[in-house]
Amino acid sequence: MKYYVGIDIGGTNIKTGVVTETGEIVSEHSIPTRAERSQNEVLKDIIASVRESVAGANVNPDDILAAGMGTPGFIDSKNGIVIYNNNLGWRDFRIAPEMSRVLGIPVTLENDADAAALGEVIAGSAKGTKSAMIITLGTGVGTGYVVDGKIVRGCEFGHMVIEFGGRRCTCGRKGCFETYCSATGLINMTKELIAQNPEGKTALIAAKEGSVGGQTVFEAADEGDREAAELIDRYISYLACGLVNLINGLQPETISLGGGVAKQGERLLKPLRQKVGLEIYEGITFPKIVNCTLGYKAGLIGAALSAR
Amino acid sequence: MKYYVGIDIGGTNIKTGVVTETGEIVSEHSIPTRAERSQNEVLKDIIASVRESVAGANVNPDDILAAGMGTPGFIDSKNGIVIYNNNLGWRDFRIAPEMSRVLGIPVTLENDADAAALGEVIAGSAKGTKSAMIITLGTGVGTGYVVDGKIVRGCEFGHMVIEFGGRRCTCGRKGCFETYCSATGLINMTKELIAQNPEGKTALIAAKEGSVGGQTVFEAADEGDREAAELIDRYISYLACGLVNLINGLQPETISLGGGVAKQGERLLKPLRQKVGLEIYEGITFPKIVNCTLGYKAGLIGAALSAR
Repeated sequence: MKYYVGIDIGGTNIKTGVVTETGEIVSEHSIPTRAERSQNEVLKDIIASVRESVAGANVNPDDILAAGMGTPGFIDSKNGIVIYNNNLGWRDFRIAPEMSRVLGIPVTLENDADAAALGEVIAGSAKGTKSAMIITLGTGVGTGYVVDGKIVRGCEFGHMVIEFGGRRCTCGRKGCFETYCSATGLINMTKELIAQNPEGKTALIAAKEGSVGGQTVFEAADEGDREAAELIDRYISYLACGLVNLINGLQPETISLGGGVAKQGERLLKPLRQKVGLEIYEGITFPKIVNCTLGYKAGLIGAALSAR
Repeated sequence: MKYYVGIDIGGTNIKTGVVTETGEIVSEHSIPTRAERSQNEVLKDIIASVRESVAGANVNPDDILAAGMGTPGFIDSKNGIVIYNNNLGWRDFRIAPEMSRVLGIPVTLENDADAAALGEVIAGSAKGTKSAMIITLGTGVGTGYVVDGKIVRGCEFGHMVIEFGGRRCTCGRKGCFETYCSATGLINMTKELIAQNPEGKTALIAAKEGSVGGQTVFEAADEGDREAAELIDRYISYLACGLVNLINGLQPETISLGGGVAKQGERLLKPLRQKVGLEIYEGITFPKIVNCTLGYKAGLIGAALSAR
C-alpha cells in the first residue's frame, strides 16, 4: 500500500494526516493555526504536526510518496506558493517548496475548497457525479469545483458580490457572498441582532454560553424566537442567491455544503432548496443540494490525493 | 476550400453567412427576428436567409460541410434544442434537427455568446489567449468562455444577481447582472432619468431623436450634462461589479466586450478598467479588458466554425 500525507490549513486549525491511495485516513493530527504569528512559525508547526501524523501511522516511511496541501486564498499551484489570503494574512508564501525541502518528499498545493471538493468526489457526498461543486461555509466561503474527477483550479466565488454596495468584506469589496454566508458573516449578523435587542432570546443564549457562534441564532430559533427565525431566513436567502448564481452560471450536477454552518443539516438544506427552486433559471436541471459527508476529512483526503 | 454556414440569432436580427474554414466570411444575409411570431415562422425565415447566403457565396454547394448556429438562452447542444430563452420567448425548440432535415447538412447549436467567444478567439480580440471571456452587452448580457480554444459550454452569467433584492429581471430573479448591464438595462435606466427630469438634456436628445437608445445618455454627457455622466458612472460601476465577480471567480486572461453598449469603446473601457482595478482580489492577474474586434461577425464566424 502506498500513502500520501494530507495537510488542510484552515483559519482556525491545521489538520494533518496520512491517507491511503484509496482515500482512507490511517492517522491524523491537529494544531491551532494562530495565524497572527509569522508565516515561518506556522510552517514549523505544520512540519511538526506532519511528523506526528507520520509517527502515528505506523507505516514504512518509504511508502509515503508525497504530501498534498490545501490552503484558503489565491495560490500558485504550479510553484506551490500562497499568493494571498485575507483571512490568514499570508502573502507570497512559498510554503510547498519550503516544506518539500524539510520533509524530503514532493509537496503539492491546492486551494482548500478545491481539495475538499476532490475529497468529497473521491469518497463522499459527490462520489460518482460528473460535475460537483463544494461550498464551505466556514471562516470564509470557499468554492471548489470538480469536473470529470479533476479540480477546476481557481474557481473561487467567495468574493462574488451579491449585494452591490453591501456589507464591507475583508477583501476590500462590498457585498461579497462570503460577507453574508460564511460562519463569520452569520456570527456578525447575530452580534448585530444582539446589539439591537440585548434582552432578546439570542442575546440571552449568547450570554449563557459566553460567546456568539454560528449555532447561536439557531438555538434561539429552537426556543421559538421570531427575530432569530427571521435572521436565519435572511441568511438562507443570501445563501440561495449565491448558489443560484453558480447554478445558473456553471450548472453543477451536485452542490455539497460544508463548514461550520452546514452542521445545521436538513434544517438549513430544506428551506435552502425551496428558495433555490424559486430562483433557478428555467431549463436548468435542479442540482442535488446535500451536505458534505466527510466533514473535515474531505479536505485531508482531497489534499493528500491531489498529490497523486 | 471547405465552407460552413454560420447562423447568429439575436433578439433583434438574425444573421446568416457562409464562412471559410479559416474564419473568413464570403457572403452574408440578415433578417429581423420578430420573435413575437411562432417558432416555426421564425425557422422558415432563417432557412430562407441561409439560402440567400449560400446563393450569394458563389461556391459549390457540395463544399458546404455543415451549419452552426448561435442562439441566446439555455440550450441542449447535444440534441440541438433551445430549452428556454426569456428574450425570444422560445421553449423546447428543436431548431437544429429541424433545420438539418430541411437543409440536408448537419446543423449544430451553441449558445450565441459561446459562439461569439469562439469567433473572437479564432480571428479577433482574443486571438492566441489561453482563457478568454466574451461579454455581450446587447438585448441581454451573454457570457462566453473559451479555454484552450474550446468553448466551456453553459458558462452563462447574465443571470448572476449582483444586487440582492434589486431590479426585477425577465428571468424572475431580482438584481441580475443583465438587468443593469444589458443595452436594455441601460435604456431602462435612461428612461427613468428622463421621467425624473423631463426638461433635462437626456430628455431633449431623446425627444429630438424620437427614441431612447443605449447611446442617448452618452450623447447627453457629451454635451456636458452632469446627470447623464452620473448615470454612465453608475452603469460602469455595475458592469465592473459583474466583471470582477467573473475575474475573481474564473480568472480569464482576457475579457472582450461586445454588443451595442461596447460601441462606446475606450470611453467605456477606460473608467471600467479603473473600477475593476479597485475591486479585483489581490493576487489575481489583471486581465486585458478590450473591445471585441469582429463585431457581429464574431457570432457568425464562431457559429460557423463551431460546426467543424
